[in-house]
Amino acid sequence: MEVVILGAGNVATHLAKAFKNKGFTIIQVYSKTSVSAKSLADNIKADYTTEIANIYKQAKIYIYALKDSVLESVISQIDIPNAIHVHTAGSVSIDIFKGKMFNYGVLYPLQTFSKTKEVDFSKVPLLVEGNSNETTEYLMDIAQQISDNCSLANSTQRMKLHLAAVFACNFSNYMYSIAEEIVAESELPFEILKPLIAETADKIKTLAPRTAQTGPAVRYDTNVMDKHLSMLKNNPELADIYKTLSNQIHAAATKK
Amino acid sequence: MEVVILGAGNVATHLAKAFKNKGFTIIQVYSKTSVSAKSLADNIKADYTTEIANIYKQAKIYIYALKDSVLESVISQIDIPNAIHVHTAGSVSIDIFKGKMFNYGVLYPLQTFSKTKEVDFSKVPLLVEGNSNETTEYLMDIAQQISDNCSLANSTQRMKLHLAAVFACNFSNYMYSIAEEIVAESELPFEILKPLIAETADKIKTLAPRTAQTGPAVRYDTNVMDKHLSMLKNNPELADIYKTLSNQIHAAATKK
Repeated sequence: MEVVILGAGNVATHLAKAFKNKGFTIIQVYSKTSVSAKSLADNIKADYTTEIANIYKQAKIYIYALKDSVLESVISQIDIPNAIHVHTAGSVSIDIFKGKMFNYGVLYPLQTFSKTKEVDFSKVPLLVEGNSNETTEYLMDIAQQISDNCSLANSTQRMKLHLAAVFACNFSNYMYSIAEEIVAESELPFEILKPLIAETADKIKTLAPRTAQTGPAVRYDTNVMDKHLSMLKNNPELADIYKTLSNQIHAAATKK
Repeated sequence: MEVVILGAGNVATHLAKAFKNKGFTIIQVYSKTSVSAKSLADNIKADYTTEIANIYKQAKIYIYALKDSVLESVISQIDIPNAIHVHTAGSVSIDIFKGKMFNYGVLYPLQTFSKTKEVDFSKVPLLVEGNSNETTEYLMDIAQQISDNCSLANSTQRMKLHLAAVFACNFSNYMYSIAEEIVAESELPFEILKPLIAETADKIKTLAPRTAQTGPAVRYDTNVMDKHLSMLKNNPELADIYKTLSNQIHAAATKK
């Protein structure tokens, strides 16, 4: 089955490799950035183009793994009515294809991808939506070939998942970043925090996050919190985050 | 070697079990809460007391795994000069024992503990501080019997590590909590976010958190962020966290 990938970023790269590994033919990579297009294309032994006009027209599936902000404009320039068109964005409605394509849908991988970190794609939750029962079934079949964790989700559900993912992944990773900066001041290596980070994530496999919550804010230990805030007095932005999150953690704990 | 544990909370429980497993004799558990004291004592086949006056006086080591707010008062009521006295708190200076005991120090386990979740204690980073070279060496020797990850840290370093741990653990867990609430609105199970949470934590084993950062805030995708903020319009506190963290993530990304 011939596939064209539009995009050459993190999602495009991991998705293209997953399809390639399962025997799909990625016939072409499109990206307006020549270096990225070539790099991904070489990686999966595909052709590439940087021109929308040169996109191969006989593929069965077109996967748009592009920045949300350019999706609409790229879609509007493509006229390949007999193929299936799929985007990969959490927060973009399936309707972005409406009136422009006949068969379309969404394959949203609920995972964080960095180019330099391998991912076992068979474990990546894939959220599937199609514009008709037939397309949905078709996309679900394709999704199940690359992942063992596929679910149906409409555009509203997917957008909520995406928002949840920003908190669970992007914001928790940012907490790691802040922690790294603070540890640096102690002249001890960041390494020393890694078992804590691993255990924090591991806990929620068996405990609800609310039950797993520990720390000074849960018991509203003003003794500790005041010391922490005084250590942050030269960084009002961090002090502000500290106060806001501590208050909310405490409020959630007392609601239990 | 005879040990008395003061406290019966999460840290006391995990530490007492770790010592017990390595052949130490926990001779007594003190907690003012009878149910907690008995529960931990039964668990590790120790005696217990709820009265400071009845604390056993011939032990070699006294471990104070108590809430920071009661530490000073409990210490002031104990007069056992020939033993070694150790607290386990991240944000309390070793000097809390000064003038009251001769040999004292700190064993701070840099980990999150919940009573219902087992932990491999040999992997828990233990931060050690003693009031003299002799005590420090002695405590380091004990620490190394229960953990393979022991480091020296003075009180200032330990306080920084504790603050970093609040961000890396307590606040990232709170992000999971928020995510769980949002997923609940989608009528999909929280289960679907677990691979993302696991991967987010796994990434920082090989990538610096800054390098691992992904999501709409990194590229300042206002398209996505505005949709997310409109979904949070009935929850101004979450919207506020979303805005603050997104702005900081973007600022950090552009500094790179």
